[in-house]
Amino acid sequence: MVVLGIDPGIANTGYGLIEADRTPLRLIDFGTITTSSQTESPHRLKSIYDRLNRLACEHHPDYFVFEDLFFSKNVSSALAVGEARGIAKLVAANMNREVFSYTPAHVKQSVVGFGKASKRQIQEMVKTLLRLDTIPHPDHAADALAVAICHARSHKMLQLQERLS
Amino acid sequence: MVVLGIDPGIANTGYGLIEADRTPLRLIDFGTITTSSQTESPHRLKSIYDRLNRLACEHHPDYFVFEDLFFSKNVSSALAVGEARGIAKLVAANMNREVFSYTPAHVKQSVVGFGKASKRQIQEMVKTLLRLDTIPHPDHAADALAVAICHARSHKMLQLQERLS
Repeated sequence: MVVLGIDPGIANTGYGLIEADRTPLRLIDFGTITTSSQTESPHRLKSIYDRLNRLACEHHPDYFVFEDLFFSKNVSSALAVGEARGIAKLVAANMNREVFSYTPAHVKQSVVGFGKASKRQIQEMVKTLLRLDTIPHPDHAADALAVAICHARSHKMLQLQERLS
Repeated sequence: MVVLGIDPGIANTGYGLIEADRTPLRLIDFGTITTSSQTESPHRLKSIYDRLNRLACEHHPDYFVFEDLFFSKNVSSALAVGEARGIAKLVAANMNREVFSYTPAHVKQSVVGFGKASKRQIQEMVKTLLRLDTIPHPDHAADALAVAICHARSHKMLQLQERLS
């Protein structure tokens, strides 16, 4: 089971791919798709689309996972995040893959163990759980890995509950 | 010069196509792409993408035009509009077409003649300018036609200014 966590943004889209049906979890890849503010937004979105498509074709993720966003600086920035998220969802739909999203509190609870964990605590746990030497950089990639781990754990819990019921 | 006005939304995406380099303007097509709330959002976005792609392949718009959005009920609804707008921009980028957007006040000023026109006044002017028998329905399609007309007029003004300068 391969999980692709995505932290969408027009300037920086973080991604993190993990193999989730094994203990410990295995890191496949992570990084950031960066686009230039000098480029018109449709072409920035196309860059994100092309890169995510390539990643998806290479690693065949079973699940595409996002963090829910509830707060935003303003309508314009929510719209811009929405544009990038729409592009990522289209890649999932093209491959007929399921999309999940989790609240920030759920991600913190699932990765660190309590819903009010700090960003630094999440990053430390991502590092530990994926047996990395350092905290993954940049933050967008670490966030994407955190939501991928959250899905792996939530999905495992769900499977266990189903087996017990 | 064919202009495609788009009023993006996950449930209803209005579109309006006009031929803009003639007087009077000529209506080509208008309508709404509707998706079911029973369908998962990635597949709704894919429906919008496929339909807009078909429209674009059929009518070869030179410009894709949107209305800027500054206010939204909440972050979730701005995100959802952003997702649909991102999809529409991707269609434009695929065809290497230019994208323009106008503020609501600019659309009103350009279509009706003053920036505080009512929705009804805009719709009446769309009907008159495109020589329709009735006001175009639904509202999303009328909004898309209004922003397309706004671009046609703004673009003409720009060309005139360029010729005179």
